[in-house]
Amino acid sequence: MGELYIALIHAPVYNKNMEQIVTSITNLDIHDIARCSATYGVKAYYLVHPGPAQRDLARRIMSFWQEGFGAEYNPNRYEALAHVRLKSNLEDVLQELDQEQQGRKVYTVATDARLYPNTIEYKDLRRRLEETEDVFLLLFGTGWGIIKEEIEKADYILKPVYGYGEYNHLSVRSAAAIILDRLRGN
Amino acid sequence: MGELYIALIHAPVYNKNMEQIVTSITNLDIHDIARCSATYGVKAYYLVHPGPAQRDLARRIMSFWQEGFGAEYNPNRYEALAHVRLKSNLEDVLQELDQEQQGRKVYTVATDARLYPNTIEYKDLRRRLEETEDVFLLLFGTGWGIIKEEIEKADYILKPVYGYGEYNHLSVRSAAAIILDRLRGN
Repeated sequence: MGELYIALIHAPVYNKNMEQIVTSITNLDIHDIARCSATYGVKAYYLVHPGPAQRDLARRIMSFWQEGFGAEYNPNRYEALAHVRLKSNLEDVLQELDQEQQGRKVYTVATDARLYPNTIEYKDLRRRLEETEDVFLLLFGTGWGIIKEEIEKADYILKPVYGYGEYNHLSVRSAAAIILDRLRGN
Repeated sequence: MGELYIALIHAPVYNKNMEQIVTSITNLDIHDIARCSATYGVKAYYLVHPGPAQRDLARRIMSFWQEGFGAEYNPNRYEALAHVRLKSNLEDVLQELDQEQQGRKVYTVATDARLYPNTIEYKDLRRRLEETEDVFLLLFGTGWGIIKEEIEKADYILKPVYGYGEYNHLSVRSAAAIILDRLRGN
């Protein structure tokens, strides 16, 4: 059985004019994706932001649900947030995973709404998760997506999520939910 | 080809103590589910709330993206929100659909994280959407879900979304995204 991690990247990402920006951490990105991570057996959900004040804010939001009143009020949120880890950049994520996996190769898998060449099919990645011991880190971008140079550095690129027509402007929360279900849904 | 509508119910729904309550409309429920609706060819997304002030608030949020600056700044949001309709209760939704569908039967399909008897499989509903002209209205509950009496009135009940284990406490935004992808994803 393979292992799955995810990372939500806040910088560098594109804005709508394809300029490189840093986005803010948003409350519901933390909660919704943490709850999806718990649902789909994701080992850790990395919130990646270069700003210490933003990481502190995320820590404060999470501590409400992890300590005292919040933890007692809603233990399901406590359980979901136990999977969240804060890092300042992707290199630090990969370094931690390298240690945690004791040198086993961690394959990075970029996700994007744009179509890149050399994409991997959902069913192929699903099969690798089911049939091998491989470790994968899914990368999700905030804003208008992860910059091209970072996408192209990934070991694999997942196909964009298509529904019923041409419109594919999903929120990153929705895209993460759908992609995890395609890879690990029952 | 069948037709698909969805409704997000704000009352009556359960709170965590299984008491019947009215929830507030939240900004990201409007946006995320509208964008999913556009992605998966949902004909209309009904926001159902009994409070006129809450419906006005939703109208104001949407008008920002549908008029003037917002519409110009992000036409994708404009397109997504064009699918949203506001109603005070489910009866009004069904009455409008009855007119729109000129008396064709509209099948209601409840969704819930709890397991009910007589559930329909995703693949069976998907096949009906692909192979028949039937019209379906998916019902999603905010809070801790639609009340039992309303669930049991529905023509069909979809199975809960399961991922990889026992945890199934998804946000309604994530559940809607996953369910639409299972029914109409490419």
